[in-house]
Amino acid sequence: MKIVIAPDSFKGSISARKAALAIQEGILRVGPDIETVIVPMADGGEGTVESLVDATNGHLQEAVVKDPLGRDVNAVYGILGHDNTCVIEIASASGLPLLKKEERNPMLTTSYGTGQLILHALDKGCRKFVIGLGGSGTNDGGAGMLQALGIRLLDSAGDDLSFGGGNLNLLADIELNGMDPRVREAEFIIACDVDNPLIGLNGASAVYGPQKGATPEMVELLDSNLAHYANRIEMKTNISIHHNLGAGSAGGLGGAFQAFFNARMERGIDIIMKQTGLKQKLDGASLVITGEGQIDFQTARGKTPAGVAQLAKSLGIPTFAIVGGIGSGIDQLRTIGIEAVFSIVNKPMDIEEAMKNSYDLLSSTAEQVMRVYISSLTQLSQKPDFFRDCIL
Amino acid sequence: MKIVIAPDSFKGSISARKAALAIQEGILRVGPDIETVIVPMADGGEGTVESLVDATNGHLQEAVVKDPLGRDVNAVYGILGHDNTCVIEIASASGLPLLKKEERNPMLTTSYGTGQLILHALDKGCRKFVIGLGGSGTNDGGAGMLQALGIRLLDSAGDDLSFGGGNLNLLADIELNGMDPRVREAEFIIACDVDNPLIGLNGASAVYGPQKGATPEMVELLDSNLAHYANRIEMKTNISIHHNLGAGSAGGLGGAFQAFFNARMERGIDIIMKQTGLKQKLDGASLVITGEGQIDFQTARGKTPAGVAQLAKSLGIPTFAIVGGIGSGIDQLRTIGIEAVFSIVNKPMDIEEAMKNSYDLLSSTAEQVMRVYISSLTQLSQKPDFFRDCIL
Repeated sequence: MKIVIAPDSFKGSISARKAALAIQEGILRVGPDIETVIVPMADGGEGTVESLVDATNGHLQEAVVKDPLGRDVNAVYGILGHDNTCVIEIASASGLPLLKKEERNPMLTTSYGTGQLILHALDKGCRKFVIGLGGSGTNDGGAGMLQALGIRLLDSAGDDLSFGGGNLNLLADIELNGMDPRVREAEFIIACDVDNPLIGLNGASAVYGPQKGATPEMVELLDSNLAHYANRIEMKTNISIHHNLGAGSAGGLGGAFQAFFNARMERGIDIIMKQTGLKQKLDGASLVITGEGQIDFQTARGKTPAGVAQLAKSLGIPTFAIVGGIGSGIDQLRTIGIEAVFSIVNKPMDIEEAMKNSYDLLSSTAEQVMRVYISSLTQLSQKPDFFRDCIL
Repeated sequence: MKIVIAPDSFKGSISARKAALAIQEGILRVGPDIETVIVPMADGGEGTVESLVDATNGHLQEAVVKDPLGRDVNAVYGILGHDNTCVIEIASASGLPLLKKEERNPMLTTSYGTGQLILHALDKGCRKFVIGLGGSGTNDGGAGMLQALGIRLLDSAGDDLSFGGGNLNLLADIELNGMDPRVREAEFIIACDVDNPLIGLNGASAVYGPQKGATPEMVELLDSNLAHYANRIEMKTNISIHHNLGAGSAGGLGGAFQAFFNARMERGIDIIMKQTGLKQKLDGASLVITGEGQIDFQTARGKTPAGVAQLAKSLGIPTFAIVGGIGSGIDQLRTIGIEAVFSIVNKPMDIEEAMKNSYDLLSSTAEQVMRVYISSLTQLSQKPDFFRDCIL
C-alpha cells in the first residue's frame, strides 16, 4: 500500500516537512511495510521555499539585504535542485513580520530587499523564478524592487524617489535603460491567490493597507499615489496595471511584475504541485493525507489541502486531512475530495499546548486514522465474504 | 453492514443514550443504510439505571426517601422491562452529590434511603435486584439500609442506633426477626469494581472516607467503628466481613450485603453487558463503537470501553472508541480490542466548551471515523484487485 503525505505547514507551530514526518511516523506504527511518500506542501505563502527545496533536494541561500525600513536583514531564499529555479518568499526581505507593530507604516516601507534577492539569485545563475507574494509589509507598488534592479524612478527634479508608498506621487519619469539586462532573460512565476486590482475599493491600499499599519488617511494617499504610479507606468510601457487582477497583490508588487517583467501569475498551490511533481508521486497511491493548521469551508478556495485533494480526486484517490483545528462548513470539502477531517487536539487544551505538542499529536492522530483505514481491510482478509454486500 | 454503538455516558456532559444517538447520527450521515444498534452502557456507577432501563424498555420509578442526612429526597430507580429486575444506584438516595460540600460528614450520613428504595421495589413485586455501588456519601457499613429493611441495631440500653458511621461503636446487639421477609426471597447482584476490605489501611474509611468529608481523626474513629460493627455481625451471623474483598465498597454497604442478603458481587460492566444482552446484539456486527468521557490506560481495568471491546474482540469484531479526552497509555488498549481512539475535541477549546457541544462533536467525529472506515471498502469495490496485496 502506498500513501502520499502532503501537508501544508501548521502555521506558527510546525513546518510542512515536520508535519509530514509526524504523519509518516504514525502510519508506520500501524504498518511498517506501507510505502510512504512525503511531499511537504505550501500554498505560495509562508513555507513555499522550504517545501520546494525539500521536494527537489535543493538548497537555501542567504543574503543580507534591506528590510522594509531599509535596515540590513539576513534573508533566505531557495534554489531548487532539479533546474536551478530560484524561489523567493517576498516576506523574507519585505515581510510584515520583520517590523515591530509600531514600525508598520506603508507610507515608508519598501520592497527594495526583494529586488536585491532577485539580483543575488541572478548572480548565482538563476533565470527562472518562483515568487511567493504572501505576507508583505509594503504598499509601494514594487517601486523599491524595481529600483534595486536598476530601474530609475525619478521625481520632477530628476532625483531618485525615496522609499515608500508615500513618495510615489512624486514620480515624474521612469528610466529603464539601467535595468539589469539579466532580468529580461528571466522568467517569473508569481504565486498569487488574490485577484485584487492595484487601485480602488478592492485595491491594494484599501484591502491590505490597514493590516500593514495604514490609517484611513494613509489609505487614501496610498491609493491615489498608486494611481499616479500606474499612470506613469502606462505612459512609459503602454501597459495599464490599474485594474489588472492580481496587480494589487503584495502592496502592488504584483503590478510591477506584470508591467516590467516576463511574469505570469498562478495559484500558489498549483505552482507547488507542479514544482514538487505531486501528480507523478500520486501514481499508484491508495490514499493521500494532507493537513494544515486550521481547516474550514474557506480551505476550498485554493488552500493546500484543497489543491492536493482535487488532484488526488481526479486520479481516483481519496484524501484525509489532519489539522490543528476544524472550523465550520467542512462538509463542503468532500466535494473537492477531502473525505474525512481529523483534529490533532485529543482533549480539551489551549492553542499553546496544541502547538507545542503538534508533532506527537499529529503522529498519534495519523496512527488512529490509519488503524481505522486498514481495519475494514483486515476484517475483509479474515472474512472475505463479509463485506461483499456491505460496500457502499 | 451492522454497527453496534455501545458507549458509556460522558460524565458531566451527556448520557450514554444521548452519546449513542449522536454517534448513530454521524454514522447514518455516511451510510443511511447501515444497520445501527444502540446499546447505552454503564459500568455499574452513574448511568447504570438509565442504561439498563433503556436497553430493556423498562421504566423509572420515583420514591421519596431519606437522603444521607435524613432529609426527604426524591430518588429514582429502574425496573427492567424483561424480568421485573430492580436497578438501584445507591447514589440516588445515599450519594455524595446530594450533600453540599460543608454537609459531608460520614460520622452522620446514613444509607437508610437505599434500604427504603429496596422496600419500595419489593412492594412493586421485584425480587431481583441490581445494585450499583458508586458514589455513596456514607460510611455506615450499610447500617442504615439494614435498619430500613427491618433489622434492628441496638445499643446496650436496647435502643435503636442513630444514623451514621459515628454511632456504630455503640452497637451491642442485632435483631434479625424484624427483617422484611421478602428480602430473604430476593437476589442481589452487586455491581462493584473495587475490592477494598471493610477495615484497615485499604478499608472503606481509610480509602474513601476523606472524599466523603472525614478528617484524619474521623477516619480513625470510622475504621474502629466498622471493626466493632463487623465483630457484632460475626457474633450474630458467623460471617466475618472484616477483610472480605468488596466489603469496603460504598462505605461498607458491600459488607452488609455480603453478611445479610443473598448477594453476589460482579464487575459492573459484566452485569451491564449481561443485562443489556450485548453479546446477542453483537451477532453479525462488523464494528463496535464505544466511548466515554476520558480514556487512558486505566480504562483497561474494567471500565465500559474495555468490557465492550473485550467481548467484541472475542467475537472477532474490532472496536473504535470516541471519547472526550485521550490520556496516556492508550496503546495498551489495543490488546483488549480497542483498535483506535478519537477525541471529539476538534480544535483547541476548554472542557466547558467540549462538554457543552458534546452531542455535535460526537456525531461529527463518528462521521469522520466512519468515512475513513468505509473509504478503503469503497476503493476496493471500484478497484477489486487494488488491495489484494496490501491487506496487512
